[in-house]
Amino acid sequence: MSLASWNDGPSRDAILGYLARITEEGGPEHVPAAERIAVFDNDGTLWCEKPAYIQALFILSRLGEQAAGDPDLAARPVVQALLRGDLAAAAAAGGEQEMTAVLLDTHAGLTTDEFDAAALHWLEAFRHPRFGVPFSGLAYAPMLELMETLRAHGFRVFIVTGGGVDFVRAIGARLYGIEPDDMVGSAIRARFERRDGRVVLVRTAAMLGSPNEGEPKVESIHAHIGRRPIVAVGNSAGDREMLEYAHTGDRASLCLVLDHDDEEREYAYGGEAVTNPDAEPILTTAGHFGWTVVSMRRDWSRVFP
Amino acid sequence: MSLASWNDGPSRDAILGYLARITEEGGPEHVPAAERIAVFDNDGTLWCEKPAYIQALFILSRLGEQAAGDPDLAARPVVQALLRGDLAAAAAAGGEQEMTAVLLDTHAGLTTDEFDAAALHWLEAFRHPRFGVPFSGLAYAPMLELMETLRAHGFRVFIVTGGGVDFVRAIGARLYGIEPDDMVGSAIRARFERRDGRVVLVRTAAMLGSPNEGEPKVESIHAHIGRRPIVAVGNSAGDREMLEYAHTGDRASLCLVLDHDDEEREYAYGGEAVTNPDAEPILTTAGHFGWTVVSMRRDWSRVFP
Repeated sequence: MSLASWNDGPSRDAILGYLARITEEGGPEHVPAAERIAVFDNDGTLWCEKPAYIQALFILSRLGEQAAGDPDLAARPVVQALLRGDLAAAAAAGGEQEMTAVLLDTHAGLTTDEFDAAALHWLEAFRHPRFGVPFSGLAYAPMLELMETLRAHGFRVFIVTGGGVDFVRAIGARLYGIEPDDMVGSAIRARFERRDGRVVLVRTAAMLGSPNEGEPKVESIHAHIGRRPIVAVGNSAGDREMLEYAHTGDRASLCLVLDHDDEEREYAYGGEAVTNPDAEPILTTAGHFGWTVVSMRRDWSRVFP
Repeated sequence: MSLASWNDGPSRDAILGYLARITEEGGPEHVPAAERIAVFDNDGTLWCEKPAYIQALFILSRLGEQAAGDPDLAARPVVQALLRGDLAAAAAAGGEQEMTAVLLDTHAGLTTDEFDAAALHWLEAFRHPRFGVPFSGLAYAPMLELMETLRAHGFRVFIVTGGGVDFVRAIGARLYGIEPDDMVGSAIRARFERRDGRVVLVRTAAMLGSPNEGEPKVESIHAHIGRRPIVAVGNSAGDREMLEYAHTGDRASLCLVLDHDDEEREYAYGGEAVTNPDAEPILTTAGHFGWTVVSMRRDWSRVFP
């Protein structure tokens, strides 16, 4: 697949020029196939993250079911605020810690198989509130083409997400053609158990390590992938360190930052520091390092498949 | 590559029969390609682990260098016992905890790149005390053939080792044709740092999670691979849970246990519970579950490449 949904222009040129340089046999910037590692952020980089993270909607849907069957849970101010979608009020009601505990608890006790089934079941019914499409309609067509083009040039392509890795894994093969072992993300600890003679993994309410944003993205890339990537693609301040990691390796690198500047076809919020309001906006960082900023409005001839 | 180093007999039949059943299009036990996941233990399963774990020799070599330059370190009884190779005395001198701390500290402060270089440098010079061969001569030829045969049948092949994953990664591609991202093991936490404007990862003296033996092997398979394997190969009690995980899935599985019963060509210690003397010997467990026991002596026409 070529980059059919990419308009002619500097972003497309930067991608194709880079690939030509690092795959040129005997060329000065040639990179052996084993080192062709590409990492993509997920939310807002590979699929739409507005008006809310899709996984957050899934978790809140489960919380609503739990509250419907549990008056004590439903009566808690933090839960009521969460179910109204008012995160600020939820944090004020219970503090970040209680809010996080409530959210982590939504799928505790399920086996990993049960969680996969629950995620898939919810995702099958989900329709985007503005676009009316199922989840498979929310992946960015130009990014699917970019991943395919990288694979055609000998790359292994990984997702490195701040989202819950088990959630993305449930649909990653269908959405992106990426198998579960090529996804890295925030993770819930799943505990070994024998049930009726069968080994299962049971989700706890505890995280395994830190939320996978910022520096932890680099540490998790080492822990899971074991090599420094040469291509990194992101869209928020939480991707900065991962992009810097690719940028400061010995090999020629390609760092892309997606600018959401397309109110008409998607959303316009590219200047925001999505996860941490105090962080330097990623578009500013991209300017410092000379990373390629991909404008959704100008560089993409279509957004969704 | 066929299973050229496997003698005709029940083990070879079990492997080939299994592969025929699960790859038969439309057959009752057919497994889709995406679910063809194979996991191999490393030490004693893929390469020789006697007279000592090769990684242990590497760590002790470094400890010897450190002690040579640091009289205080050299004077500690736990260090003296370790450098004599007397683990029991070392544990008695300082307790398991102090011994572990000394060993974990040997490569703390190195960047991951520096560690890789140190491991490779040591491994290039290493010769096996009995066989006189370099590390590449210690992989089991029949296991290399088995991995290749699995790949030819659409499998993705992973190493799930109790050893330090960064050590195995340094040589895994050359030894086994397995890239770093397909290796799971015990891990040291590597911390994000910027040095001279460059992002590096610096090894700490702390483990990331538990030692990867027993139940943690199953938990780390979920964390890294995200699917239940259908083929599992091991040789010690530390592999039991991983083998059980494959055995108790919905798909037809193949569980192999290597019996080291060949004093002449390698070593004879298959009945031992290597890492935990209180654990049930894996050959006993294999009998309970009906797993295929591979006899090095009878089933392999050659051991080393």
